[in-house]
Amino acid sequence: MTGFQHQAQTSAALLAALPGWAALQAARPDLDRETVEAILSEAARFAEGRLAPVNGKADVQGCQLVSGRVSAPQGFAEAYQALANDGWIGMDVAEDLGGQGLPVVLHTAAQMLFDRGCTSLMMLAGSSRAASHLLAAHADDAVRADWVPALCSGHSAATICISEPDAGSDVGRIRTRGEKREGIWRITGQKIWISFGDHDMASRLGHCLLARTSDAPGTRGLSLFLVPDTLEDGRRNAIVIERLEEKMGLHGSPTCAMQFEGAEAILIGEEGRGLAQLFTMMEFMRLQTGAQGLGLSLSVADIAAGYIKDRCQGGDPKGQPLPIAAHGDVRRQVMDLSSKAATLHMAVLDLALLLDRIGLEPAPQARAALEAQAAFTLPMIKTFGAETAFETASAAMQVLGGAGYTREWPVEQVLRDSRVLAIYEGTTGMQAQDFLMRRLWREDGAGLKSFLASARNESNQFASSDGCGQLLDALLQDFECLSAEMDGLKTGNARAGEYAAEPYLRAGWIAVSALNAWRLTRLHGQPRLAALGRYRLEQLSGEFSLHAGKCRSASGNLDDLFETAFPPA
Amino acid sequence: MTGFQHQAQTSAALLAALPGWAALQAARPDLDRETVEAILSEAARFAEGRLAPVNGKADVQGCQLVSGRVSAPQGFAEAYQALANDGWIGMDVAEDLGGQGLPVVLHTAAQMLFDRGCTSLMMLAGSSRAASHLLAAHADDAVRADWVPALCSGHSAATICISEPDAGSDVGRIRTRGEKREGIWRITGQKIWISFGDHDMASRLGHCLLARTSDAPGTRGLSLFLVPDTLEDGRRNAIVIERLEEKMGLHGSPTCAMQFEGAEAILIGEEGRGLAQLFTMMEFMRLQTGAQGLGLSLSVADIAAGYIKDRCQGGDPKGQPLPIAAHGDVRRQVMDLSSKAATLHMAVLDLALLLDRIGLEPAPQARAALEAQAAFTLPMIKTFGAETAFETASAAMQVLGGAGYTREWPVEQVLRDSRVLAIYEGTTGMQAQDFLMRRLWREDGAGLKSFLASARNESNQFASSDGCGQLLDALLQDFECLSAEMDGLKTGNARAGEYAAEPYLRAGWIAVSALNAWRLTRLHGQPRLAALGRYRLEQLSGEFSLHAGKCRSASGNLDDLFETAFPPA
Repeated sequence: MTGFQHQAQTSAALLAALPGWAALQAARPDLDRETVEAILSEAARFAEGRLAPVNGKADVQGCQLVSGRVSAPQGFAEAYQALANDGWIGMDVAEDLGGQGLPVVLHTAAQMLFDRGCTSLMMLAGSSRAASHLLAAHADDAVRADWVPALCSGHSAATICISEPDAGSDVGRIRTRGEKREGIWRITGQKIWISFGDHDMASRLGHCLLARTSDAPGTRGLSLFLVPDTLEDGRRNAIVIERLEEKMGLHGSPTCAMQFEGAEAILIGEEGRGLAQLFTMMEFMRLQTGAQGLGLSLSVADIAAGYIKDRCQGGDPKGQPLPIAAHGDVRRQVMDLSSKAATLHMAVLDLALLLDRIGLEPAPQARAALEAQAAFTLPMIKTFGAETAFETASAAMQVLGGAGYTREWPVEQVLRDSRVLAIYEGTTGMQAQDFLMRRLWREDGAGLKSFLASARNESNQFASSDGCGQLLDALLQDFECLSAEMDGLKTGNARAGEYAAEPYLRAGWIAVSALNAWRLTRLHGQPRLAALGRYRLEQLSGEFSLHAGKCRSASGNLDDLFETAFPPA
Repeated sequence: MTGFQHQAQTSAALLAALPGWAALQAARPDLDRETVEAILSEAARFAEGRLAPVNGKADVQGCQLVSGRVSAPQGFAEAYQALANDGWIGMDVAEDLGGQGLPVVLHTAAQMLFDRGCTSLMMLAGSSRAASHLLAAHADDAVRADWVPALCSGHSAATICISEPDAGSDVGRIRTRGEKREGIWRITGQKIWISFGDHDMASRLGHCLLARTSDAPGTRGLSLFLVPDTLEDGRRNAIVIERLEEKMGLHGSPTCAMQFEGAEAILIGEEGRGLAQLFTMMEFMRLQTGAQGLGLSLSVADIAAGYIKDRCQGGDPKGQPLPIAAHGDVRRQVMDLSSKAATLHMAVLDLALLLDRIGLEPAPQARAALEAQAAFTLPMIKTFGAETAFETASAAMQVLGGAGYTREWPVEQVLRDSRVLAIYEGTTGMQAQDFLMRRLWREDGAGLKSFLASARNESNQFASSDGCGQLLDALLQDFECLSAEMDGLKTGNARAGEYAAEPYLRAGWIAVSALNAWRLTRLHGQPRLAALGRYRLEQLSGEFSLHAGKCRSASGNLDDLFETAFPPA
């Protein structure tokens, strides 16, 4: 079985083992195990047959900006249209809007296969799908009907335009203006880091763009617009592609700097509510980033696991060399990286399923608890999907040695492609602030409580004598204690919180990893996953202590030390 | 002051603070502080003025294999000749052989500046300098006189040829043969991963090559040869450059696969002693790798520290944005990466100085202790010089955000270039085996004992009330206890040792880092370095616990878990 098909089967097995799956199946009896397996197997076939073949070539060829327009790598347009024709782009968009009406979790399981095939191409599918959801939720009927089915069918494609030179993580400093003149909204300003800001893979492009429509400071003056690249009369809108960034990786995805020169635009939703509305889209993008990272992680983990069976080195010099899988040091490396990828696999599916369960939950209080839990989990999935991909690629390269450093193997591309995942869609620093200051401090840890309650509820249902339940319970307890301490910083020492936010996010991920690794240990029909879960679970308490220690030392003299080391000029 | 000059000054300050410096100065009274500073300042000027300008272009242009010969990037030949003309290549080679007769530690401090300028070009200087030492030690008078001055002057250049397709880490499986026919040694076989295996930067190339001269198994049948690219009559030797590897980075350094087709060669030293003789060279290369990593680490640390003062984001949305250096999260990131680089800086210079002290020490027992300590330290400097470069580059990229992922900034090149450092010159896994199985087990921890004794001796000389001495003493103690446990595996559970070797190497690096970070805290005239040392020292006990925990759990069920997860086909 190929790695793609194996990943599809594993996703189906993990889904069936997740406690939320029963609730989804009750609502969607059509999605029995065979159907899920068939969908994912088809996605695997597409990823392997249509996307993987263009991936390496696109990395070498890159994108070109010629006469003001961008051409995507060879084969991208055809592969994108095939992806759309087969219904994969709008998988979880409502059927009456041209989608398939499938759950988010199935979209996610398919997307991680496609990302494994060709991450750069999927950047366009990702923003187009997220835009479909955004427009479905906030656009008026005419715009919705005009755009959402077209995005799903691949006729149209969409971007998200937020960043500007002086407004990166700090969205409130956006200066691009939206002004209504003679009844028409016009956008003026520069946007940067726009993935697929222009290309030749669809007939019409729409830019979901944040612009300032009032002088209210910060994010309150921002509104959301849809800016088409082509006007109704066929003329090109006043948008100039200024340059493509030369990046370390993701060469197939054109990263554009764009100038909007009074471009005609459609206001989406309410004036001044732009950022709040865009959050719908950003949440989808963050989950997508986690799933991207997972697809890449599983890909390189398989490469490493295959390599060590084939590559022979060492052993008695008088005899044949041994496969390097015989060496303890190599085994440890492969267990480390594979167990991280497997644990992430469970965790990403769990979050996607949680999003589906929110939609199914009728009781407001229970629904709010699920929403809080999703918001608690999202910054971790985004961050550690990203980091696991990069770390796993680097670890796999180490297993392959010199070969892994060359283009003979795809690992080096994964390493280059994956590095940006921890930067875009909100850097790790921004995710950590969200996790500590919004989720724990501002929302009084509602998501944390919901997570702990459901994890403990799950753990309590299964007594075991293998010690795994105890490891999980201890880590949940440790994280609860640490969270209480971090909560105490809110009033007494918010500055220490700034220093502690990232280690606290890492500690949270250990707790979430513990739950998901423990779940793997319980998959008795899947000895491979159970062994990886056990290995990972046994690593976690040491890692937790490291991050907790950093959290606790953050209230010390760090500003003094910093200012001594880096005095103001 | 530029980053290069600042690095030169810092090296001089660190050197003066190292306890071994006094012994070196007693032997070399000409090397007073002003002279050292002048030499390093001149090296900084050269690195910045001649090497840095070719670095980025070489990354883009790479090397070409045309009609069987390799052309190096534009400007490389001129820069290399200038490096040689100014005496930098043979800095620590004896004066009567064309070198400058300077200490290893001064060469190392200069080399880390040059590597900061252009790592790929310095790959050639590195192997040529190491070959100079190798030939000075083991070649006969005629060969020594023919080659060593020529290597120092840049007329000639040298490579090391060890690896073959089936002999990477496992050197004993070398199949390339050396056979004596009609009084002439001839080499037949393939060598791969040969840096600068061919190029147009010098008039004559010599390959220091391991080949099998008898059927004694393993490394015992290996002899060392010097294989010139050109014969005395001007004909080209029977060497074919088969291909250049396409690598993720170090594009300026041509990595060659080479076929030796009965090439004429000179036997160096004794038949069957090839590997033992080559160790001289490999030790130099390993220290060089650590220094490479340091130069790259310091370079990106400076970029990050500069960026956060200029880049403005965040703060009250009604006011001007703040330099991101104001944010606690950013400060923590920069302290993390800068303090690791500064600690490595002290540690690399310490090892280089130790090598000089070996040469100065007349008493056999004291000399043996220094040699053991150097052998104990070398695998850590090699490994963590490499890892610190890559980690620091990745951390600096995170500080720069999207900008760091583009070619607008040199960080992404450093990240790509540095990744191979943990692979070549002995992978991390091989260094870890050396550290545990050779240094601790086979040599009964002689190097460990010497390290602990000298570190404690140094610590005891300086009572302090700042708590730093206590942190150091505790970590030395913890590492000694852990080492006793690891020593116990030798007879009872060597398999667990295979699993534990890498975490044990990491634990050792924490102890070495503790000593060097503590040394930084004592630099009262250098508040920046003292603050970085203190920050790093406070991080170390958490990191030590993590690695010690992994060492201790290595005796468990890891083979069972691995074989369950990855059953034999």
